[in-house]
Amino acid sequence: MIKTPYLLFLGDAPDQLAAKVAQGVKDWRPNICLGQLKLPGCKADLNLKNYTLKEAKKEGAKTLVIGVANRGGKFSDSWKETLCNAIELDFDIASGLHNLLTEDKDLVNLSKLNNSDLIDVRKPKDDFPIGNGKKRTGKRCLTIGTDCSVGKMYSSLAIEKEMRSRGMKVSFRATGQTGILISGKGIPLDAIVADFMAGAVEILSPDNEEDHWDIIEGQGSLFHVSYSGVTMALIHGGQPDHIILCHEPTRTHMRGLPDFKLPTLEDLYEMVLPIAKISNPNCQISGICINTKNMEHYSREKLKIEIEETFRLPTVDPFIDGTKKIVDRLIQ
Amino acid sequence: MIKTPYLLFLGDAPDQLAAKVAQGVKDWRPNICLGQLKLPGCKADLNLKNYTLKEAKKEGAKTLVIGVANRGGKFSDSWKETLCNAIELDFDIASGLHNLLTEDKDLVNLSKLNNSDLIDVRKPKDDFPIGNGKKRTGKRCLTIGTDCSVGKMYSSLAIEKEMRSRGMKVSFRATGQTGILISGKGIPLDAIVADFMAGAVEILSPDNEEDHWDIIEGQGSLFHVSYSGVTMALIHGGQPDHIILCHEPTRTHMRGLPDFKLPTLEDLYEMVLPIAKISNPNCQISGICINTKNMEHYSREKLKIEIEETFRLPTVDPFIDGTKKIVDRLIQ
Repeated sequence: MIKTPYLLFLGDAPDQLAAKVAQGVKDWRPNICLGQLKLPGCKADLNLKNYTLKEAKKEGAKTLVIGVANRGGKFSDSWKETLCNAIELDFDIASGLHNLLTEDKDLVNLSKLNNSDLIDVRKPKDDFPIGNGKKRTGKRCLTIGTDCSVGKMYSSLAIEKEMRSRGMKVSFRATGQTGILISGKGIPLDAIVADFMAGAVEILSPDNEEDHWDIIEGQGSLFHVSYSGVTMALIHGGQPDHIILCHEPTRTHMRGLPDFKLPTLEDLYEMVLPIAKISNPNCQISGICINTKNMEHYSREKLKIEIEETFRLPTVDPFIDGTKKIVDRLIQ
Repeated sequence: MIKTPYLLFLGDAPDQLAAKVAQGVKDWRPNICLGQLKLPGCKADLNLKNYTLKEAKKEGAKTLVIGVANRGGKFSDSWKETLCNAIELDFDIASGLHNLLTEDKDLVNLSKLNNSDLIDVRKPKDDFPIGNGKKRTGKRCLTIGTDCSVGKMYSSLAIEKEMRSRGMKVSFRATGQTGILISGKGIPLDAIVADFMAGAVEILSPDNEEDHWDIIEGQGSLFHVSYSGVTMALIHGGQPDHIILCHEPTRTHMRGLPDFKLPTLEDLYEMVLPIAKISNPNCQISGICINTKNMEHYSREKLKIEIEETFRLPTVDPFIDGTKKIVDRLIQ
């Protein structure tokens, strides 16, 4: 578990989008975000109080979270001084970047001299067992997309939020870097060795109370040939009781694969259910989240009605509509 | 590429089964096996000439292949002296065992002082890219099983052998430890980091001449919840033109998963084809290999006829019948 509260580091972000990770943490976990730290030239802002490291430390901040991505996903030299100062003040540092804090000798040496942990959420912390497929107690819901980056994490967090607002027992189970920084724990599934993927998902979502819900963040897509193996392991390791389909209707081809057409929701529905029933014969598809950020109001509403009629499933854009309709269905 | 000829090391194998790997190498690549090396108490024999290390070296042996598995898949202390002597004679050593040659300090230090490579085929040698899904030239055939250990490697090697005997251009593409030791190269797919599984299969089976066949060794099973992600990556990275279904009809549950019933060949047929068509729309299922070692002659022949009638596909036990019928179909 990453220690809270966080101080969100925005570095010298060239624009707001570059601070997407910090924005996600702030949106979904505002109560653990003490404030933000910007370097000169930073063009992003989260409408949080600005702190120096010393001020934040005094207010109780425990972890400096790198909430900004550079080109190539690397941390830049211009950040180094700040990171070193943070370590000397006994901050932990958490990062989802490609180049690892724990491979930078200066940071590693400094952290050994201080009471500071370097946390690379892209690097699995533990060894995992081979999956055993044993039925686990508690409820599980998994988001599955027609493609990568269609809103699976967002949909999962929105369902978690709705359940929490109803006083239900619920855990968001992060499987990617941003999700781990947001929720403070999880497993970076795409970095796990193949043989142990399903076992890692079993560990991520262990036995729980019968009325407890794990909302498991989906990864990749069964239709994305680069990552479909990861999606498969999530389904079979996760043994979901419920699957929520996620879709971005305006996309013309699979992300990063110009020769691959996006599947329809029908295609996904038909493919995923027989696969999911292998690990959980009672699995059902219980809702559809569409990401309509690129659509006009009228066509968006029309599409939602069409999809609801076709599938007879609650259909929402979680960003616009929330997930109330889906959670109503899940607890039926 | 592992250097040949091999000297097959049988150690102090407690029985013939313990030398299964060496047996596989000898069965499928007799021409690269110079002979065998046994320690006192060894109960296995390959009907190969016995050599000392020195004699084998003199005859040109290049690699000592550990063809025996101990309990737990580890190499035992009683082998150490032989392995050290082999290194001092400039043998390479190749191993598929769980504990790695390259993590044994004595062996590593000794190999640095000599002209000797330590080759752990369980450890990927290279970094691999993310899969790109681009259509590759040449023909590809992949074996897919209802379960693990139903004969996918055997079937693949039998098809390669039949094609080679006809003078066809063909490569066996190994994806597991034993297959790599047999063919001298390949990629241990279950040891690859999740994100790069499909990309590794693309590298394993690159562009080739239009009349060249890659026979890709399958792994796991879409129905085996521990390993299905690996199978999925093989299908999508391999983009096979042809799939051969492999089945062991007497098995009552999935290997290592007593609560999971074996799927039928029909179940597998229906699941695998839509998945395979994502990466190769022209993929077809072109044959069935059944492993009938636990069946009587009469029921075996009856079953083959039944399966052939149901699927209208050539059906063989490759160990008994060879794969002539299947290769006839592949080249139709």
